Amino acid sequence: MIEQMNDEFYMRLALDMASRASGQTGINPVVGCVVVKEGRIVGLGTHLQRGGGHAEVHALNMAAGEAAGSTVYVTLEPCSHYGKTPPCADRVIASQASRVVVAALDPNPAVSGRGIAKLRDAGIEVTAGVLAEESRRLNEAFEKYIVTRMPFVTLKTASTLDGKIAARGGDSKWITGEQARMAVHTLRHQHQAIMIGAGTAAADNPSLTTRLPVPGLNPVRIVVDASLRVPLDAKLYTDGEAPTIVLTTAGADSERKSQLAARGVDVIECGDGTAVDLHYAMQRLGEKEISSILLEGGGRLNGSMLQARLIDKLVLFFAPKIIGGGQLAPGSFEYEGAGRMADALQLRGVEVQRYGEDIAITGYPDYSSGKE
Amino acid sequence: MIEQMNDEFYMRLALDMASRASGQTGINPVVGCVVVKEGRIVGLGTHLQRGGGHAEVHALNMAAGEAAGSTVYVTLEPCSHYGKTPPCADRVIASQASRVVVAALDPNPAVSGRGIAKLRDAGIEVTAGVLAEESRRLNEAFEKYIVTRMPFVTLKTASTLDGKIAARGGDSKWITGEQARMAVHTLRHQHQAIMIGAGTAAADNPSLTTRLPVPGLNPVRIVVDASLRVPLDAKLYTDGEAPTIVLTTAGADSERKSQLAARGVDVIECGDGTAVDLHYAMQRLGEKEISSILLEGGGRLNGSMLQARLIDKLVLFFAPKIIGGGQLAPGSFEYEGAGRMADALQLRGVEVQRYGEDIAITGYPDYSSGKE
Repeated sequence: MIEQMNDEFYMRLALDMASRASGQTGINPVVGCVVVKEGRIVGLGTHLQRGGGHAEVHALNMAAGEAAGSTVYVTLEPCSHYGKTPPCADRVIASQASRVVVAALDPNPAVSGRGIAKLRDAGIEVTAGVLAEESRRLNEAFEKYIVTRMPFVTLKTASTLDGKIAARGGDSKWITGEQARMAVHTLRHQHQAIMIGAGTAAADNPSLTTRLPVPGLNPVRIVVDASLRVPLDAKLYTDGEAPTIVLTTAGADSERKSQLAARGVDVIECGDGTAVDLHYAMQRLGEKEISSILLEGGGRLNGSMLQARLIDKLVLFFAPKIIGGGQLAPGSFEYEGAGRMADALQLRGVEVQRYGEDIAITGYPDYSSGKE
Repeated sequence: MIEQMNDEFYMRLALDMASRASGQTGINPVVGCVVVKEGRIVGLGTHLQRGGGHAEVHALNMAAGEAAGSTVYVTLEPCSHYGKTPPCADRVIASQASRVVVAALDPNPAVSGRGIAKLRDAGIEVTAGVLAEESRRLNEAFEKYIVTRMPFVTLKTASTLDGKIAARGGDSKWITGEQARMAVHTLRHQHQAIMIGAGTAAADNPSLTTRLPVPGLNPVRIVVDASLRVPLDAKLYTDGEAPTIVLTTAGADSERKSQLAARGVDVIECGDGTAVDLHYAMQRLGEKEISSILLEGGGRLNGSMLQARLIDKLVLFFAPKIIGGGQLAPGSFEYEGAGRMADALQLRGVEVQRYGEDIAITGYPDYSSGKE
């Protein structure tokens, strides 16, 4: 197919550059920028890491003297304020670009629209909203975090078609195939942290690292362990592959807490109940600048997180298999649940994709739909 | 898209005509035929009902004198033997057609290939195998039945993404949306019988009729009821919408059997165990010329039919919802199951389709893959 050259043509390139950097910018959004002058691309830039240059700065540096009179395509509204770097809007104005095309506005309500206003005040023509939805999707975690300071949580499961995440004996290797597993490891790279329950940690002794054909970033590991029953020699506590955080309760054994702390594990007390206060836990993780979490829990943790309305997105992989096993085989969601079908938790924006023989169903929970 | 004219161009029309007649030919296959002469379609025909004319006969009748020198496209090899009608191969030869294009061979091993041989012996040019797979798919039930005399069973479920077919209180209205439900009613029209368990029959008191925006055919209703616990005033026994068959055991109450028989219900004793011998039941249904069954069972009947390896195809509708409920909310498959993930029952030929917000996953069980 011959793609037509227009504003979207260049914005798609900027979005592609931004999306490939997902996972490496910490709590910052991913942003791409393309500078075009007289029919030629003269500059390309992407925000690569927190504290580093913004996309516009990289692209305008590449464009150098060609920036004057150019059109600047940028996937997120140029910032208008001093953060870790000077305002990009000022940099664009100084470059003497004549037009700026923006995908999404800054989601931070305190500054949204100000960058564009600053550009227009300087006499630059601005077109906003080109492929805005695509840009927002790339930064959905950033959009939540910047407003709520709570991490965006993506719940991932891999189950059979009858919703089982293991056989009745507990065996679960492997449910899905290679392509789906590689997609999961890509999700790990793209999230700042990965969270599991004590049951999974104790039974599987996982390292929760990112293993791909190319190097990936390892997320911070988070274990929900109310009673600190995961053994001290677990890989998560000993392999040093990534920082580990344990969410526990005030009542958990204090000697065990000291032993974990001595191993460099960050132990966070979340309430004085028998279970971890998950809402409080998310707040504390947000304070630690964890803006996105991939939840790879068992059925109970998945259910608790859903009931607490802390899940923002679901990615459910289904292997085309049926295994049976009734209540002895664990399901992907184990919780009290709704009493009527009409009160089930509805997903919105549902998409279906194939990964080899496996099927991924993705959606966003609509908490106004479910009664529990 | 401009479709290119070639043999497939006409065969697709023949297949489309055949597929629209699915469900109305009883144990017979669906067949379509297109007669083409000098660049014009001169005849169209479809097998409409058992005992009625075959597709070739209808199409050649329409073509009349134009049949001489024509090309005959037919989705299934013309029959070479006397059945309820004379052999179609003879009719094609008598029409003086000069070429015949066939999709699939006759699946009956006793006669497969003979129709084509007869045509060739008469000097007619024959091309076989054009869109053969599509034709075989249309007649997958016929293919099984003609060889084994056992019905082809399509298992259909409608569940949440966590595999639940009802809330913990038993409420199940509605799981899927209008489009998925209309697809299920279309499946009812296309199958000769519909089968449920006594639990569903007693709890929901369904009529199991085909309800669509256009009139559809009602399948024979089959209830698996080992102890004859479904009430005598159930719609299935009283509404007269379609014949009803009850599969039960030798030990079930004989007075109840007489009462059912007096209502016109066909009571079949399947073994003297406490449960219905499902394999024997399928044999008896085959003897009664039921060649296809849509199984809309609960989780237990689904599990038993899978374990007995009596399921030929699965059509699993998933509503984009999560309902929880643990073991109190019934699942789509309830059976002992496999002890290891590697022994799960694998589906082959998996396809995924959307029906509104719902997702249908279709596949064929590979019984060589599962250990239970």
